[in-house]
This record gives sequence, C-alpha cells and structure tokens, in this order.
Amino acid sequence: MSLPSLEDIKEAHDRIKSFIHHTPVLSSEAINKIAGTEIYFKCENFQKVGAFKARGAANAVSKLGQEAMRNGVATHSSGNHAAALARAAKVGGIPAYIVMPSNAPEIKKKAVKGYGGEIIECEPTLEARERTLDEVVAKTGATFIHPYDNIHVVEGQATCALEMWQEKIDFDTIMAPVGGGGLLGGTALTTHYISPKTKIIAAEPEGANDAYRSFQAKELIPMKNPKTIADGLLTSLGKINFEIILQHVDDILTVNDDEIILAMRLIYERMKIVIEPSCAVPLAALLKNKERFQNQKIGIILSGGNVDLAKLPFK
Amino acid sequence: MSLPSLEDIKEAHDRIKSFIHHTPVLSSEAINKIAGTEIYFKCENFQKVGAFKARGAANAVSKLGQEAMRNGVATHSSGNHAAALARAAKVGGIPAYIVMPSNAPEIKKKAVKGYGGEIIECEPTLEARERTLDEVVAKTGATFIHPYDNIHVVEGQATCALEMWQEKIDFDTIMAPVGGGGLLGGTALTTHYISPKTKIIAAEPEGANDAYRSFQAKELIPMKNPKTIADGLLTSLGKINFEIILQHVDDILTVNDDEIILAMRLIYERMKIVIEPSCAVPLAALLKNKERFQNQKIGIILSGGNVDLAKLPFK
Repeated sequence: MSLPSLEDIKEAHDRIKSFIHHTPVLSSEAINKIAGTEIYFKCENFQKVGAFKARGAANAVSKLGQEAMRNGVATHSSGNHAAALARAAKVGGIPAYIVMPSNAPEIKKKAVKGYGGEIIECEPTLEARERTLDEVVAKTGATFIHPYDNIHVVEGQATCALEMWQEKIDFDTIMAPVGGGGLLGGTALTTHYISPKTKIIAAEPEGANDAYRSFQAKELIPMKNPKTIADGLLTSLGKINFEIILQHVDDILTVNDDEIILAMRLIYERMKIVIEPSCAVPLAALLKNKERFQNQKIGIILSGGNVDLAKLPFK
Repeated sequence: MSLPSLEDIKEAHDRIKSFIHHTPVLSSEAINKIAGTEIYFKCENFQKVGAFKARGAANAVSKLGQEAMRNGVATHSSGNHAAALARAAKVGGIPAYIVMPSNAPEIKKKAVKGYGGEIIECEPTLEARERTLDEVVAKTGATFIHPYDNIHVVEGQATCALEMWQEKIDFDTIMAPVGGGGLLGGTALTTHYISPKTKIIAAEPEGANDAYRSFQAKELIPMKNPKTIADGLLTSLGKINFEIILQHVDDILTVNDDEIILAMRLIYERMKIVIEPSCAVPLAALLKNKERFQNQKIGIILSGGNVDLAKLPFK
C-alpha cells in the first residue's frame, strides 16, 4: 500500500478547504497552569457536521471518478461519519446511501436526512450492517467509503494536522484520540513529513484499548465488547491505520472513564466549549502523566462536539 | 449625572485592554437559517472570569485615586461581579472585600478566593448584605463598587460594544440581555455615539421583567420575587442605567423560561459553546419575534459562560 505524500495531503487540503471550516486553535491559561505545560487545542468540534470526519468524507468524495460519482457513495455508520458522508455527497451533488442500525438515535438519523442522505435500516449487528451494505452496493453501484480504513479518508483527516502546522507553533508533542485510527494515522503522517522530531502520542479509553494492546503486541488485536463513555472510540483499529501507527506513533496511553469525565469537565468549565467525551481522552492522558509533558508545546486535537446534552456526565 | 463620552469609553478600553480578552465574534449558518437573519454573537462567555463583568470591574479599579487604591474595593455579590472585582483588585495589587450571603454556592466562593478576594459572610437577605457592606467600608475605607449602578462600571461594560463596532459590521440591531442594566446601558451608549441609526433591543425574562415594566411606565419599578432560569438577570434595574435606557434603548422584549432553554440549546448544539442561561435571552426574543428581524445584521452579546454543568436544563 502506498501512503499519501506531503504533496498529496496538501493537494487534498486544497481540494476540500472550501467545503470545510479552517478551525481555530485555542489555549487556556487555567488549563496550562494545571497541566504545567503549554497546550494548543485544535477545535474540530467547530468543524462542519461537528467533527473532523467532514475532512475525510469530503476528500473521499473528491477522489471519485466521473463514473463513480454518478452512482454515489455508501457506508455503514451510526456516528459522525454517516452525517459527514451524507454532507460531502450533497455538496458533490451525488447520492449517499447510509446503512444504520434500527436502534440508532433519532438525532443521528435526522442529521443524515438533513443532508439528503438515504437511510437503509438494518438489524443492530455488525454482520447485518455489512450484509446490508453489500446489498446496497450491489444494487446501486455506489462506492463504499469506510469510516476510517480507507486511504482517501486518512488523507483527508491528515489535513487537520496540516492546518495545525500552519499556525507556526513548534510542537514538541501532538496528541490525538484513537478509535478506528483515521485521525491518528493522518496526524502522524503529516507530522512525520513536517517535523519528524515531534512526538505523536495517542490516547485511548481503557474500556476500548485495542490500539494500545495491538501497539504493544505489534499485531492487530480487535476489540471485543468495548465499553467506555467515549462513544466515538468504540470501533476497532483499521488495518491501514495500524501500519501507519506502528511506523509513526511514539506511544499510546490509556485512561479510565472517570479520568475522561474530569478532563471533559475542565474543558467545559475553563474553555467554555462543547466537546464530546472522546475529545477529552488526550487531555486526560496528559494530566495522568504530567511529569512526562512538563514545559512542552503540545497540540491536542479536539475531535468533535456531537454530544447528547441531556446525558452529560457531570454531577 | 454626566454620562461617559465616546472618548471616555475609548480611553477606558485602552486602560483595561491588557487585562481582558478581546473576545471573538462568531456566527452559525444553521442558526441564521432558522432565524432568517444574519446574527453575530459577541462571545463574552470567553471573557476573563467567564463574563463581561471583567470589563466594568477592571475599569472601576483603574479609575481609583492613589489614596483609594491603598484601601481597596468592596462589594456585595454572589455572582460574576464578585469574581470580576476580586480579579481586578488582584491585578491592581489592592485588597478586595466581597460580602457574600452564607448560602452562596461553594464554587462562587472558591472563584473569589482564587483571585485572593477576602470573603465576608452575612445572612442571605438584601438588608444584611447592605448592612455588612456598610460595616466593611467603615472599617477598611474601601471604595464600594456597585455591580451595575456605578458609572465607571457602565463605562467599562460599554467597551464590549466598542469592540463589536471594530469588526466593521454594519449592525441594523444590537441585542443584549438586561438585569441590572450595566451591559445594556454601556452598549446603548457606545452604539448611540457610533451608529445612532442602529436599533438597541433589550431582552428580559418574563419572571424578572422589571426593566420591561419600568420602560413602559417610564418610571423605575423594582422587581419583587424574581423567578427565572436566567440567574444572571434576577437583579433589579439600576438608576443610572434606567436613565440611559430611557434615552437610547428602542425596545425591551420578554421571553419565558421554556423559550430561553430552547435558544440556549440551539447555541450549545449548533455553535458548540458553553453559555449561561442569561445569554440565551436575546436569541430567544429574536426567535419569538422573527418577522421583525428578517434579513438584518444583528449583533447579540453572549454575556457569560458560568453555568452549573450538573444542572443544565436539557432533557
């Protein structure tokens, strides 16, 4: 498999930049004081569809040939990728077929429909999702865009770190959460090209620690029955991303849900921004391993802001 | 009473600007679509101490003479002004005496103490607060800085609109919430000088509608037993501010708590930022009176972001 070059990532950014937000980088004096280090948060919670997923989906659609464009795109997802792909397809004027489990939250379905995506419901099992997707693809000729194990998606997510490096901050470390690994892989790749001395540290919930275990064992170990408040990180690591991670990620740290909630609260209280629990995982890992990060310049990607406001975990 | 001139407000801004944040102005395509108009939110929820109150307190401290500086400042408040004054005093290197009711939330006391303010507790009645404050002032010689009925405080709050006008947006209307009237008064004054054709519309909760009733009656009618989720707007209108409001405010609209919560949710969901309920009052009033604001350029001040995360009103 040939990985995108820096030139490829820059071209991807040029292709998608009019369809996404150039999100701000924010800091908090109060959090820096608590952490004993200098943190720059890249706010993908302000991204279109409320998550970095808008980048990968937009890039994947932009890479389709003329014939493929006509037949549209398809995926199975009940999360941010579903809305992101539906939106990217709408912008491109092509159909999007989204396979969703019948028990997906109404609000997620609404988001997909809002972007004109066609929802195909299935039983809430991975097997049913994959089978239904195969049927949809066979019937429509649509191109399957995997949420993270797709090189064009990874190339799109890599544009997030590209924007971070445009800020002219000399990051010692960049941290990202890891679920399927699309964001982490893209971030590691861009940073490897631009600043190979910069450490890439991933953060993962203990209850969905397949990336941690795979990284230690140097072989892909899928997650069984993941359980964590960080609902964006329940997925198992993708194959493409695991290759990139083995080459370009320096370490993977894990945290438990209480640590995630504490870091999440800190961001709400001190930065006054809305994030989903997955975003708080890197800050939680930093605070748990403070001594390791003292007096550095640290970039942290806040991956998204789509959270059920009625179920915030604050007591 | 002589009101601050535009020159005075500009000088105030020059004095305080290194002690406050120049807060951003944000927009949301989604909210604009719902409202049928173009809204620019001035984000004082990102201000120091989490509210516009940092401006007025900083300005009041900057106006003290040398003698007064030595004796420090005092106030009674259980809200954002308490923390704002403690912080302004700390920056100025002078003492701050904050009279707080014994039942004030621990988190509010902690904020004041965090800025080195000295808390003097009293019974939770207005009478006890005023008496205790008188005693503190008599004993220490500190200067009493009223939370809103103080011309230097109003001059400080007026710098918020000054920054809005620096954005070079030709606002048809500027909206602000009204409690004691410091923010509204300052906003109306600045806007009167810079763009007299721009309408100033205040928004107030129905359960604390003394400004609305006073504005209609053209005489100050204090609020008895206010009750609203917008806890920053429970106070009655100040005398100084009422004078400014009668001259320079075009209208006052009221909304109920359900309307406030709906607007608040819209801001959390679509803008991914944390605001306190008081901030949502102007957007609620706009949505309730949509036809009146169609296709305008509207500035809305989001006054603060200090909210109890465990008690958010979302279901």
